[in-house]
Amino acid sequence: MNGTYITTNKDDILKSEEHDFIAELTDDASASFEIVRTALSNGNSVVSANKKMIAENLKELIELQNHSGTNLLYDAACAGSIPIIRILDDHYQNENVISIKGILNGTSNYILSNMNFNNLTFGEALLKAQKSGIAESDPSLDISGKDTNYKNTILSVHSHGALLNPETSLTLGIESINKSDIEFAKNINSKIKLVSYIYEKEDVFTSFVTPAFVNRDHNFFDVEYENNSLEIEGEFTSGQVYTGKGAGSYPTGIAVLSDIAALTKGYRYNYLKLNKKENAANDFTTPNYDYDIKVYVRYNDQSDISGFGIHSIIQENKTTGNKYVIGYCSLNALNKLSAADRRKIFICAFDPLKDIEEKQRLNSKL
Amino acid sequence: MNGTYITTNKDDILKSEEHDFIAELTDDASASFEIVRTALSNGNSVVSANKKMIAENLKELIELQNHSGTNLLYDAACAGSIPIIRILDDHYQNENVISIKGILNGTSNYILSNMNFNNLTFGEALLKAQKSGIAESDPSLDISGKDTNYKNTILSVHSHGALLNPETSLTLGIESINKSDIEFAKNINSKIKLVSYIYEKEDVFTSFVTPAFVNRDHNFFDVEYENNSLEIEGEFTSGQVYTGKGAGSYPTGIAVLSDIAALTKGYRYNYLKLNKKENAANDFTTPNYDYDIKVYVRYNDQSDISGFGIHSIIQENKTTGNKYVIGYCSLNALNKLSAADRRKIFICAFDPLKDIEEKQRLNSKL
Repeated sequence: MNGTYITTNKDDILKSEEHDFIAELTDDASASFEIVRTALSNGNSVVSANKKMIAENLKELIELQNHSGTNLLYDAACAGSIPIIRILDDHYQNENVISIKGILNGTSNYILSNMNFNNLTFGEALLKAQKSGIAESDPSLDISGKDTNYKNTILSVHSHGALLNPETSLTLGIESINKSDIEFAKNINSKIKLVSYIYEKEDVFTSFVTPAFVNRDHNFFDVEYENNSLEIEGEFTSGQVYTGKGAGSYPTGIAVLSDIAALTKGYRYNYLKLNKKENAANDFTTPNYDYDIKVYVRYNDQSDISGFGIHSIIQENKTTGNKYVIGYCSLNALNKLSAADRRKIFICAFDPLKDIEEKQRLNSKL
Repeated sequence: MNGTYITTNKDDILKSEEHDFIAELTDDASASFEIVRTALSNGNSVVSANKKMIAENLKELIELQNHSGTNLLYDAACAGSIPIIRILDDHYQNENVISIKGILNGTSNYILSNMNFNNLTFGEALLKAQKSGIAESDPSLDISGKDTNYKNTILSVHSHGALLNPETSLTLGIESINKSDIEFAKNINSKIKLVSYIYEKEDVFTSFVTPAFVNRDHNFFDVEYENNSLEIEGEFTSGQVYTGKGAGSYPTGIAVLSDIAALTKGYRYNYLKLNKKENAANDFTTPNYDYDIKVYVRYNDQSDISGFGIHSIIQENKTTGNKYVIGYCSLNALNKLSAADRRKIFICAFDPLKDIEEKQRLNSKL
């Protein structure tokens, strides 16, 4: 290393034997995976904050840890400064988690707060997020909901032992939100938040990401700007809420530091719920999308919404420039919308887990 | 053990070598201490939920662990189902914690919620708490603030490395609250909560427990009934809020179970901040009570409040039956009030850490 401790060649580190562990903090998921895979294979433990890399490769990363006896910690990858992975893996390991709702993306929450409080357009709010260093120069993962989905994928392994395929999980974003949606939310005493959901009850497991109306009574109503929040419903613990900064170098830095400290103590994740699954511990769990949820869909042209079967319509507004419909449609139908179709409309759920639970209750009475 | 796994004689367990650890769940602090001390001395690790025992003997309990190489875990002793000790000990070990505010006693919070929402008197609300199994048959530790103080004492070791003497920490309770206090709070858009405070900034360390007015904007405003909540302000993490059930057998059971699971993994507290203190790691830290805070004091007779020097009076009401004064007095003066004096009046702070910070700012400008 030329007498210095600084190098820009990853092989100088990966091939060296002079370190106890590697902290991998790139934002390129494939470079990140190559580094982490090599390090774990070489017997090095790793701290990483790359949610995309982890979510997409969790199966192999767990196998690699088991095989080489190394530890991979990634609490910094999810919910910034809130040590949620460790809380789930340790504290909830003996608890039946019913649901987790999350605001997991600081950038989109920052955009939504700015649209709500400062009457900015989506474009203005996004620009503000980029200028203030909250958003990446390429914020597409944030606003499309994909970043939230990666984090949710990581959560579900620790909360429910469910390995999800992030590629096929229902993920709706906020790219097409406009001022009229914010106004609509205000009129029903709500705010729009980008929310992740994991739910398991009576053999129904589901998980998805969608914008949702959050009303005044909900814990998420006052979670603003770059804050993240998680609401965990457990069989014995009831409701718990964890709120804190989800973005920014300082909060993330502390999360990385605390993973490093944990590594030095030999701490490793239990993956207890994953290991408990009877067979096929490493097979993907398919979320159940056979449920209908209540949605608000704002559109320009009737043809934009003809494809996915909105039914049981509750409210409709056909004023040009502000057309919307409120009704029910299945999670399956939403998941089948193409990216192009999604960009034409803005979809916002109301209380999807409540819709699913009510349907379950009805079914069990039949 | 007469062929069974049940015994009512603690020595059957303490003298046996057939167990891996002991979970000690009595509510008698001296019996608890005897059991835990003996077990740790014998080389047994222990899980305990007895906050009074732990707060009063933490110094010796830490020495015992170090001496015998055993582990004592007690996350169930503080904030019920919120794993706050582990969060502080692990996640905040490399972070400078500026302050922790806590609602740590489910019983008093339950009483206050019932007085506020259901217009009950203190006595009616207490009775309701007892009937519903929230309060102990002897709730004196809860309503006097002592239970909160014990928990706060435990927190401060992990958040600031400060061993406090619970006997000498300023602890105000809610025993003398009445309906007029609740009304007063409503009139200023606030609720009264029993709040614990730990604060450290620029060489000023303080810690105390007092009822406080919590306004609509504060995270604690909606923390109701048996819920607990902690707000942690860190130098790099900024604000974090943890909320969940603080009382009840199920949430506490999960906390005990997760301590047991941690024990089986060999988990132990770092006590990193305590161990970092330069000298006298095990000496008590004396909280700084040389600061004046704004208080509301409701009294019957002028003589009740003549002793502790309320000054800079902002508001006074001398209507018989509902006399109160709002002004400033020092934490020292409040701490010197006798138990008898306290019972005659009801004291409620506004935002004591803000008062202290403002004074610090003023001092630094001089």
